[in-house]
Amino acid sequence: MSLTLSEFSLIDDYIATSATSRADVCVGIGDDCAVVEVPPGKSLAVSMDTLVAGRHFIEAVDAVSLGHKALAVNLSDLAAMGAEPAWATLSLTMPEANLRWIRDFMQGFFAVADRFGVQLVGGDTTRGPLSITVQIHGFVDPRKMMRRDGANPGDLIYVTGSLGDAGLALRLQQSGKLDIVRHQQLLRRLDYPTPRVTEGMQLASIATSAIDLSDGLIGDLGHIVQQSHCGATIELQRLPCSAAVKQVIAESSEWSLPLSSGDDYELCFTIPADNQQQLQTLAATLDSPLTRIGAIEQQPGIRCVNAEGAIVDVESGYDHFK
Amino acid sequence: MSLTLSEFSLIDDYIATSATSRADVCVGIGDDCAVVEVPPGKSLAVSMDTLVAGRHFIEAVDAVSLGHKALAVNLSDLAAMGAEPAWATLSLTMPEANLRWIRDFMQGFFAVADRFGVQLVGGDTTRGPLSITVQIHGFVDPRKMMRRDGANPGDLIYVTGSLGDAGLALRLQQSGKLDIVRHQQLLRRLDYPTPRVTEGMQLASIATSAIDLSDGLIGDLGHIVQQSHCGATIELQRLPCSAAVKQVIAESSEWSLPLSSGDDYELCFTIPADNQQQLQTLAATLDSPLTRIGAIEQQPGIRCVNAEGAIVDVESGYDHFK
Repeated sequence: MSLTLSEFSLIDDYIATSATSRADVCVGIGDDCAVVEVPPGKSLAVSMDTLVAGRHFIEAVDAVSLGHKALAVNLSDLAAMGAEPAWATLSLTMPEANLRWIRDFMQGFFAVADRFGVQLVGGDTTRGPLSITVQIHGFVDPRKMMRRDGANPGDLIYVTGSLGDAGLALRLQQSGKLDIVRHQQLLRRLDYPTPRVTEGMQLASIATSAIDLSDGLIGDLGHIVQQSHCGATIELQRLPCSAAVKQVIAESSEWSLPLSSGDDYELCFTIPADNQQQLQTLAATLDSPLTRIGAIEQQPGIRCVNAEGAIVDVESGYDHFK
Repeated sequence: MSLTLSEFSLIDDYIATSATSRADVCVGIGDDCAVVEVPPGKSLAVSMDTLVAGRHFIEAVDAVSLGHKALAVNLSDLAAMGAEPAWATLSLTMPEANLRWIRDFMQGFFAVADRFGVQLVGGDTTRGPLSITVQIHGFVDPRKMMRRDGANPGDLIYVTGSLGDAGLALRLQQSGKLDIVRHQQLLRRLDYPTPRVTEGMQLASIATSAIDLSDGLIGDLGHIVQQSHCGATIELQRLPCSAAVKQVIAESSEWSLPLSSGDDYELCFTIPADNQQQLQTLAATLDSPLTRIGAIEQQPGIRCVNAEGAIVDVESGYDHFK
């Protein structure tokens, strides 16, 4: 049923109270199904993601951040398609009905939902090992949506925001070197990623392809070039990185943070070279910077070049694109 | 992303091969989102259910049956709304990539999907404790859909099919008395439930309310009377039961199998008394019988009466509706 709360009836109050209430929701939580209206002329974009304790997060993680992230990573998928967010469903599997944990989780979840105008319309709660599945629903113009298979040789490759911050935060955390005051900004990038929803919606009419960076630039751009039957060159010195990430690169002379650490949830997209002027006009209206990092080419695979244009072997441990 | 197969890339072949290919799917498995089209004039009905190993099924359960059931229980929710099935998403969390298990699971899943014209359009695969989340999507006429809050005093209560078979199979299984030859039909009712999709779509224009029987008649009808702010009387001798269930009732003089055992996935619905003739005409076209089992009344709560019209205390152990 739409929201099976029989096992945890005490938590109804926390889950059934989204601040966002949309006019296009005919039936919300509490019936066999939720019933919703897609506007005329729009297609429906849907994406589902599961986060499992011990795999995607440690069980002791802050529940507010987990609630934020569970919805944000799904919104990031919508952003990569250029879609406008609308509704979410949530399946929460928990070992016990810890009311404080649930309240915190839903607080994080609803903060993101309300910011992006998303209404929670249904789902399921079950007893079991901690795991969260969210499905997000949004509207997209089928003529403008950004697919992974639309890149063409000659297209320019861009990313939003900066790369490697979340990866650096995770690295510091895992090595016990994280200073929560000094590294506050980095940690926020890991625990409270901002899905580039506005950017995605605006870019949809310009870009030929897009993907969100959840697994790292090389891996995710790899999906674009594979599905578009082409290749790419990345200019390392163009990669947009924070001062902290730049320092690690300077000290270690290796590029894994911006190239292959995940969890940044920035967008990587391609545009025809002719659309550069249009993109610059658009960029001025957006919160996050847009940086050109390379170009799409006919030759399959992804090559990284240094400031002198020489190919750098940065990914020897990777078997995705050898 | 729409279907994250990075952790289990070997299983792509099994999951990405639905026989059903719908014209209203613009983007299926393999991009950030699936993109689909809702027909003009229709609303979208969605429902999400999670099945957790050790809670909803034993880990050793036959994977074909589990795949069947994971989709069938969701289709049952659509049926209860009167909706026409369209697309599913699937999140599969598994401790290991057991290819034989996955092949069997998807065989059961796709057999149901193909029978009801459902295309799998996306989802997620992750490593973790065994658990399955399915979201189903269907079309419904918002003027006809069957909600839980539409029953009125004077309405007649009906159920599809027969009640208690799945509960009896489970009881025999748990007590070690199940004979897989002799009890084949009962076991099929437990392991391969038939969602009453056609029935639900046909009933939508006649019924005032409906719910699917996943938790048992008293509990599920309880949702209808609570949300419709009314009550109900059930006539015990009218309950449609198989010979095997009738025998248990005769021997034990207790009615828990048809009243409170779950997993039958029949529909319980209400119609105005004036619609009886229309219902009889409709019943002649349906595969499963429709049986009148009682009536909606103003007085809250659910009462069960015997052949003489005397109230029988059948649910003393239940605190839902005391």
